[in-house]
Amino acid sequence: MSLITVDEAHARLRSSHRVLADDEAVSLKGSLGRVLAADIVSGINVPPADNSAMDGYALKREDWQGTDRALVISQRITAGSPPQALKPGTAARIFTGAETPEGADIVVMQEKCRSEGSQVWIDAVGEAGCNIRPKGQDIMQGDTVLKAGHRLRAQDLGLIASLGFDRISVKQRLKVAIISTGEELVEPGDTLKPGQIYNSNRYLLQALLENWGFEPMDFGITVDDPDVISDVISEASRKADVIITTGGVSVGEEDHVKAVVESLGHIDLWRVAIKPGKPFAFGDVQGTPFLGLPGNPVSAFVTALVIARPFLFDCQGIVHSEIVPLRQVALFDKKGSFRQEYIRVRSVTAGVEIFEKQSSGVLYSTSWGDALVVQKPDEDIKHGNPVDVIPFVLFN
Amino acid sequence: MSLITVDEAHARLRSSHRVLADDEAVSLKGSLGRVLAADIVSGINVPPADNSAMDGYALKREDWQGTDRALVISQRITAGSPPQALKPGTAARIFTGAETPEGADIVVMQEKCRSEGSQVWIDAVGEAGCNIRPKGQDIMQGDTVLKAGHRLRAQDLGLIASLGFDRISVKQRLKVAIISTGEELVEPGDTLKPGQIYNSNRYLLQALLENWGFEPMDFGITVDDPDVISDVISEASRKADVIITTGGVSVGEEDHVKAVVESLGHIDLWRVAIKPGKPFAFGDVQGTPFLGLPGNPVSAFVTALVIARPFLFDCQGIVHSEIVPLRQVALFDKKGSFRQEYIRVRSVTAGVEIFEKQSSGVLYSTSWGDALVVQKPDEDIKHGNPVDVIPFVLFN
Repeated sequence: MSLITVDEAHARLRSSHRVLADDEAVSLKGSLGRVLAADIVSGINVPPADNSAMDGYALKREDWQGTDRALVISQRITAGSPPQALKPGTAARIFTGAETPEGADIVVMQEKCRSEGSQVWIDAVGEAGCNIRPKGQDIMQGDTVLKAGHRLRAQDLGLIASLGFDRISVKQRLKVAIISTGEELVEPGDTLKPGQIYNSNRYLLQALLENWGFEPMDFGITVDDPDVISDVISEASRKADVIITTGGVSVGEEDHVKAVVESLGHIDLWRVAIKPGKPFAFGDVQGTPFLGLPGNPVSAFVTALVIARPFLFDCQGIVHSEIVPLRQVALFDKKGSFRQEYIRVRSVTAGVEIFEKQSSGVLYSTSWGDALVVQKPDEDIKHGNPVDVIPFVLFN
Repeated sequence: MSLITVDEAHARLRSSHRVLADDEAVSLKGSLGRVLAADIVSGINVPPADNSAMDGYALKREDWQGTDRALVISQRITAGSPPQALKPGTAARIFTGAETPEGADIVVMQEKCRSEGSQVWIDAVGEAGCNIRPKGQDIMQGDTVLKAGHRLRAQDLGLIASLGFDRISVKQRLKVAIISTGEELVEPGDTLKPGQIYNSNRYLLQALLENWGFEPMDFGITVDDPDVISDVISEASRKADVIITTGGVSVGEEDHVKAVVESLGHIDLWRVAIKPGKPFAFGDVQGTPFLGLPGNPVSAFVTALVIARPFLFDCQGIVHSEIVPLRQVALFDKKGSFRQEYIRVRSVTAGVEIFEKQSSGVLYSTSWGDALVVQKPDEDIKHGNPVDVIPFVLFN
């Protein structure tokens, strides 16, 4: 079990992923955060017809005979009302967004016009086409506006609606089983006996998966019994697309998860050069990918964000790129180590300050903070120098 | 109706907000994105008892008599098993995370020990307290770990679970009515007649509100009839905490929303020096705050993010601070104007590139892009210089 870098872990996972989620048609309304299964191709032109960019008068440019020659106002066109073809030699009163009438090739803004009764005097006209937004200027019929693999944001829903689609094809939510291992774990709400601690990983992971648009499937806490663990993991492999366990994959004496996964499929233990979060297991159970995260909450959190997330995104069919850290000023000194460290920090005006206790046991550090500093192996961080910072929101 | 700055709009809204959401108790499991109604105060110490930071041996420091004097191993303590008081003059085999026994004041890592049968020889010991994580080191009973008004992230759920809480007090989701106005609007799924466009604002706003953890209440598209508009707005004021309309608050001739809101309460039209998004209305209907956004989709989007969002967060009871833009390199030139402009851009390795068509009609610009550049009034942006950038994710 040799030490591998975070990049190597990424590369191994990426090479062994496949998209596990099928397609389904859903209503556009409930599709925030869902992943497109097909490109969105516009069936219409936007705008659907030539229309006015101004309140003013539409006319054929060559009908303008100079400042003191009035034109008859032959129609009035508001947004939403279909215009009639422009009577030759006349002008149409028109408002912003209204469709320009057939036969008009210019709109003159009202500030350059004087009207009286049914006549209008125009001071000056521009080039032909002036103040007209041509049909299809923004989007042409047949244009691809969003690609398969895109995770839908609010504005994307607006855009898709503007093209007239009310149902779209998306990937089914990736079903991810969560199994917590550890005899010392107790559910919140119960009372702690000596030596016990509350199970926080389950809540943490469930919320992360929810955030990412997946369907978490909670398989609870398993006891330290190989038969029970085997039953739970088998069931999870039948029901879920991916299995995640926390705890139980170290080299400790009480660890049955590794043996069970080995008996049902295969498992590799990786010593990833990452802190917090060194032990990480990857394998499969009857064809279902298996990710074994550390039991320690901060280690579980960091490995979920840094190692599990890109793999899960791949399995969901999300087209995504590596997160690019920001550069901010470190307000602390910290020596590097042979491992890539993910330091819990908080942004203040002057830069990022460190949470004093970087022990992987202190989950409070992640709630106190709003970002992780990525400290590369052997990189020393010096107060006042820029460092790589990933705000937690970028992991969403 | 004089022109006001974006900051003035913020200040006016902030001064007239009040928290509109009541408290409710919810299960921790479903509380991602919810807002704490009360501080989270720890009822326990974390760790709950002194425990070992290492695999090794626990003993009383003064019982160590030198390298060649063995101690009897009197018990074996694993994580989760309660220890007995240490027999005087003996050592306890202990593992990481296990509770240290009463009477022990030091843990020596196993690498410094040799054991044979029931005896252990210890090469050297450190200071008293060494390798022991004292009770309450991370969190003391009575410590406030999260404050009322905090929006819950995944790690916060983990932290709260680790303290044993399975139910928490949160703010009820803010109920926000959405009313679309405009005769030319058609719902996606229907066929466009000449002069009609699809209603995209409804989907856009609904998704934004959902993203922010609110409860959107959709009141559909209203026709241009003052009686109908009055009925819809009255109903919304009874059912929702805040009313948002899109369109219908310009100074156009067909605009009935302003008159209706005036008859039911009061309304102010603001000319905010913002682009896109100048016209903005603020008022109240029978005591319910009323926000009138522009009808134009990009203007509605930008004003929702920049002007409505902080007000809605205040009404929900979220303690939040102003979004701090990042500094990135502009890959474009753009002259400033008297208005604060929000330019749709996309991040690439070298900086941010501009979407060619910055017309407020082009909703595609917001889907194409991943951020807004904030261009202050009269600020000229020059290619290669740093500018203020707000990635869309920071508005979540």
